[in-house]
Amino acid sequence: MLTVTVALGERSYPIHIGNELTARSDLIIAHLAQPRVAVVTNPVVGELYLDRLSGALEKAGVAVVPIILPDGESHKTWQTLNLVFDRLLEQRCERKTTLIALGGGVIGDITGFAAAVYLRGVPFIQVPTTLLAQVDSSVGGKTGINHPMGKNMIGAFYQPRLVLADTDTLQSLPDRELAAGLAEVIKYGLIRDVDFLSWLEANMDKLVARDAQALAYAVRRSCEVKAQIVSEDERETDVRALLNLGHTFGHAIEAGLGFGTWLHGEAVAAGMVCASRLSERVCGLEASQSKRIASLVAAARLPTTPPKIEADRWLDLMGRDKKVAGGSIRFVLLEAIGRALLQRDIAPDDVLAAIRG
Amino acid sequence: MLTVTVALGERSYPIHIGNELTARSDLIIAHLAQPRVAVVTNPVVGELYLDRLSGALEKAGVAVVPIILPDGESHKTWQTLNLVFDRLLEQRCERKTTLIALGGGVIGDITGFAAAVYLRGVPFIQVPTTLLAQVDSSVGGKTGINHPMGKNMIGAFYQPRLVLADTDTLQSLPDRELAAGLAEVIKYGLIRDVDFLSWLEANMDKLVARDAQALAYAVRRSCEVKAQIVSEDERETDVRALLNLGHTFGHAIEAGLGFGTWLHGEAVAAGMVCASRLSERVCGLEASQSKRIASLVAAARLPTTPPKIEADRWLDLMGRDKKVAGGSIRFVLLEAIGRALLQRDIAPDDVLAAIRG
Repeated sequence: MLTVTVALGERSYPIHIGNELTARSDLIIAHLAQPRVAVVTNPVVGELYLDRLSGALEKAGVAVVPIILPDGESHKTWQTLNLVFDRLLEQRCERKTTLIALGGGVIGDITGFAAAVYLRGVPFIQVPTTLLAQVDSSVGGKTGINHPMGKNMIGAFYQPRLVLADTDTLQSLPDRELAAGLAEVIKYGLIRDVDFLSWLEANMDKLVARDAQALAYAVRRSCEVKAQIVSEDERETDVRALLNLGHTFGHAIEAGLGFGTWLHGEAVAAGMVCASRLSERVCGLEASQSKRIASLVAAARLPTTPPKIEADRWLDLMGRDKKVAGGSIRFVLLEAIGRALLQRDIAPDDVLAAIRG
Repeated sequence: MLTVTVALGERSYPIHIGNELTARSDLIIAHLAQPRVAVVTNPVVGELYLDRLSGALEKAGVAVVPIILPDGESHKTWQTLNLVFDRLLEQRCERKTTLIALGGGVIGDITGFAAAVYLRGVPFIQVPTTLLAQVDSSVGGKTGINHPMGKNMIGAFYQPRLVLADTDTLQSLPDRELAAGLAEVIKYGLIRDVDFLSWLEANMDKLVARDAQALAYAVRRSCEVKAQIVSEDERETDVRALLNLGHTFGHAIEAGLGFGTWLHGEAVAAGMVCASRLSERVCGLEASQSKRIASLVAAARLPTTPPKIEADRWLDLMGRDKKVAGGSIRFVLLEAIGRALLQRDIAPDDVLAAIRG
């Protein structure tokens, strides 16, 4: 088992990465304020791992309230969040009851937000079961739900007490979801670690083939890069925004097609390719580097081309992004692989040209 | 103008108390991150004060998005909260757009919670227009909404940047709402300041007659007591819980009759009388002091007797309170006027006897 610490003062927490962690009730119990938890999951993940997690906890004397939510990004809504509150209140869960998220990013985001606002805040533990959740949403405390007018528009910064990233769970992931997680893994190399990017180029076939050691290394290095950035800037006033490479384009793709049509990682993958082309136009990224990015994205079995969306609609969708300030969109761009920067006031024509490719 | 500072480190903020503050755009502008605000209010308060506040801001070059919500505790719900999000998104309000709550406790609680979770947090200013909001909900950062199964079950601790308590607005309050605010004023004397309680006994007639100077003093002293307690314990791990004197009974009254039937302050007033009788039984409050409390509550034109609710239903309703831990209800009691304490494991028979009187 490897451990990455997210250093946030009194809100610091450990991420344990390794095999068979879902059954390690001892790791969870060390962080409980009372021997009672609510485990939030969905039918697919629940079928695979809920018994293992609950069984281990119950054997150790912890009472478990299971909460099964409908599966998928389209359910990351007020309605689903209210199902969690209904159940917590019905079961009289208290301020010391810990919520455990067992699942991917959607389960993690909803559960974390529920924990942030139920009784004005209860403790929270993440057991992420997708690659995307292990490398992205489980690090840094962003929680939230979607609104019909935009993704993650309602939420909170709320840190978990503990993250257990069980790499065994990655073996059961659909191929498309594994690839979606690799998009964020690639992102960490692009924004801050050229050596990791080279390692990814050399090992992408192993990752796609789910080599356990390669996956564990990729999860660990991704968590380290993200943990470092989040420690520098928890509430995204500056450097944390670099983690949004590809996301302004990506969120527009997700919203434009309807949430859930493309997976988040797929939209980000195409978005990173767009961002690299925009970087060529406005901040001097070399064309050869831009091609290298597109090749790595393709090697991860991810889309390199965004879907067909009208030009006006692209600009409208991007204008709704949370990263807008003073009406101007802030893009994350690359000067070089491993060196990201923020830039505003980019001409719409340049943006549209980057999308067209 | 008087100023009370709520000392919470980097989240510290001033409460200005005085006449004609609603028109003091200069005080607000000093705290804005961009010249754009959304003012959340209801039709009744909006009719009285929105033009004054918006007019002053617009004259100073600040764009104002008005958001008018339906009036009353029964609208402190997800549905109403979503109206705020819809409008903020429609109007493309950004992370630097400040939300201003213009109204009583319901408007303050909804707006504060909206500010806490919109785009994961935007700045927030309170302009409380009821006595209750000026002395209670505007100090300390508790925000939230009700759930069909309980009051304030969903929310956040989220501090405003500034509070403007314009004492002129108290002249337009209905008598019943003025009295409801006085319940919380009395509470501050009871839990921590016997001198203030004596002052209240001597000046209750002036307060009921809305003597401007007496009201300003009562608001100031109440804010000082609450600010001091909140500074000691922002997240209610111990001493802040003393502010809940009368509230376990009071919340049960509100939930039992349906939210909005009794005003919050009315329910707390009867609840404080119940708590004083329970204090006689279990922690030695003198009967003469208990009578003194009931007299002061009556002098404020507040109910001293709770409504008829079945015994089992009382216990059930109180068991749902946020202050429950390990299944046992924690009561705030009085050893003497000015000295409150927390106590658990009180026999249901004692509780029911205190309710019966």
